[in-house]
Amino acid sequence: MQVDYEVLKVKAIDMLKERGVTLDDIAGITYEIQKEYYDDITFSVCLYHVNNVLTKREVINAVLTGLTLDILTEKGYVDEPLRSMLMNDYGLYGIDEVLAYSIVNVYGSIGLTNFGYIDKLKLGIIGEIDRIGKEPNKCNTFLDDIVGAIAASAASRIAHTK
Amino acid sequence: MQVDYEVLKVKAIDMLKERGVTLDDIAGITYEIQKEYYDDITFSVCLYHVNNVLTKREVINAVLTGLTLDILTEKGYVDEPLRSMLMNDYGLYGIDEVLAYSIVNVYGSIGLTNFGYIDKLKLGIIGEIDRIGKEPNKCNTFLDDIVGAIAASAASRIAHTK
Amino acid sequence: MQVDYEVLKVKAIDMLKERGVTLDDIAGITYEIQKEYYDDITFSVCLYHVNNVLTKREVINAVLTGLTLDILTEKGYVDEPLRSMLMNDYGLYGIDEVLAYSIVNVYGSIGLTNFGYIDKLKLGIIGEIDRIGKEPNKCNTFLDDIVGAIAASAASRIAHTK
Amino acid sequence: MQVDYEVLKVKAIDMLKERGVTLDDIAGITYEIQKEYYDDITFSVCLYHVNNVLTKREVINAVLTGLTLDILTEKGYVDEPLRSMLMNDYGLYGIDEVLAYSIVNVYGSIGLTNFGYIDKLKLGIIGEIDRIGKEPNKCNTFLDDIVGAIAASAASRIAHTK
Repeated sequence: MQVDYEVLKVKAIDMLKERGVTLDDIAGITYEIQKEYYDDITFSVCLYHVNNVLTKREVINAVLTGLTLDILTEKGYVDEPLRSMLMNDYGLYGIDEVLAYSIVNVYGSIGLTNFGYIDKLKLGIIGEIDRIGKEPNKCNTFLDDIVGAIAASAASRIAHTK
Repeated sequence: MQVDYEVLKVKAIDMLKERGVTLDDIAGITYEIQKEYYDDITFSVCLYHVNNVLTKREVINAVLTGLTLDILTEKGYVDEPLRSMLMNDYGLYGIDEVLAYSIVNVYGSIGLTNFGYIDKLKLGIIGEIDRIGKEPNKCNTFLDDIVGAIAASAASRIAHTK
Repeated sequence: MQVDYEVLKVKAIDMLKERGVTLDDIAGITYEIQKEYYDDITFSVCLYHVNNVLTKREVINAVLTGLTLDILTEKGYVDEPLRSMLMNDYGLYGIDEVLAYSIVNVYGSIGLTNFGYIDKLKLGIIGEIDRIGKEPNKCNTFLDDIVGAIAASAASRIAHTK
Repeated sequence: MQVDYEVLKVKAIDMLKERGVTLDDIAGITYEIQKEYYDDITFSVCLYHVNNVLTKREVINAVLTGLTLDILTEKGYVDEPLRSMLMNDYGLYGIDEVLAYSIVNVYGSIGLTNFGYIDKLKLGIIGEIDRIGKEPNKCNTFLDDIVGAIAASAASRIAHTK
């Protein structure tokens, strides 16, 4: 089997957009957590690194898988008891965070601190994603963690290149 | 939201069975990799530990999620490009192994050596799972890794209690 | 080789104390991050869970290893270039965080969010540990992450039992 | 603090050599596990990828840290009870494997299967490292896992580029 990850990257970005998240939104989170550390950081630099994170095979696969689970749950194709856990973003489910770590891990362990911080404070679009996910028939269980993980990974890339 | 993990354990075991894998099959793999280390190991002891692994929240959640992805892929609900990657157990997909590690990790890092060994040699029912997964319209991309991870975790439990 | 982890637990607690950290200090961090979620949480409950985290083999091994590296660095037994990285708590070193995750991972993935949050905000005694680590001839590179990881793991235990 | 990872890479390779392991030895393991999958694989290609793995910050940090622990244990600077665990390569210690995973993880999850396989079968120089580690006053507790992890990571790089 041949897989063209250039094509898959576009598909992953499209899926994020269909779920209401642009690369600008993600870069905004990265900018928010990095501006206090680096005087010269700009939004464009953050966007550059977000784009780069999305070229990684592990990241693309996590985006496609996590968002597919959110979508199929909304469409009613996921059976109980998993359905209720996903619809309610059940706190002890944990697989959403497992996928997020598979993204962050690619950039070494220092990204996990940023991920934990973003996730706890619901920075930028994360708060909006969570709010929508609580509406009836909406499921953003994977989306918030995946977006946070990409933003945290971009922050790690910046730290690695400074 | 309230989740009764006693009920979920039964559901996870049922799902494994519907996909063709019994706890006896998993215990058989554990027995195969442990018998050379412990003279007094029995199949019943292995089955006891497999049962115990399946009481863990992280393990149950991984089983429910992974097998749901296999099933929804077979049913045609997963869109391209993810569909082809899952139908073909694409080697660089990696999310199946990420879920497997979330199981093995619960028992500390020593379980990963056993998982790698089981996965590479396709021990016991794993070979059969892989063969069936290659049939048209069949998808066992997550099943083989999850079964290997449970067997490896049971082996780790045995090592921890010796 | 026989290892008595009851004895090792005492040794790990002694080592933490020699480095200036009591179990009360760690429980204080756990209390700080949990009190907003649970009305009925008490300091004693947090201390109970911190104590429990310290019975885990992986946790004890990480404490003994990390603190030994801090101590041997202070004593001048670690050669360059590692010596300077450890003395300066070099941001891209990352092995301190790797050990921290080996602690947090035992309690499933949900602990990592708490760890990231504690680490970023330098809660409770963590700020003090970092301040001392910056004094000449002092090295707390592993200590802050290990203390944060134990506090985060105790918080995870509380979440798991609610 | 400024760290030049070009210099550190040379230092890491020197430390491996002082402990009896050359890059050729590591490439030999990679070749052994890859030759059955790729008809056109050569030893030189394996060596190229081993060299590349050793440019990664996380890998260099793990090599410097793990080998330092082996060396300081041999020299008698590590106190009990950790000393005995390291001198005897105690099976439930696990921190050696934690460091190994921090290497393998950089190349995504597919490397862990190869690591588990290499570790279990004691391929190539790994068997020799383990034999020497059992001699009196010798400690190779971290060395075998780190060498296995570098070889497995090189194999992952090959899989990613095919």
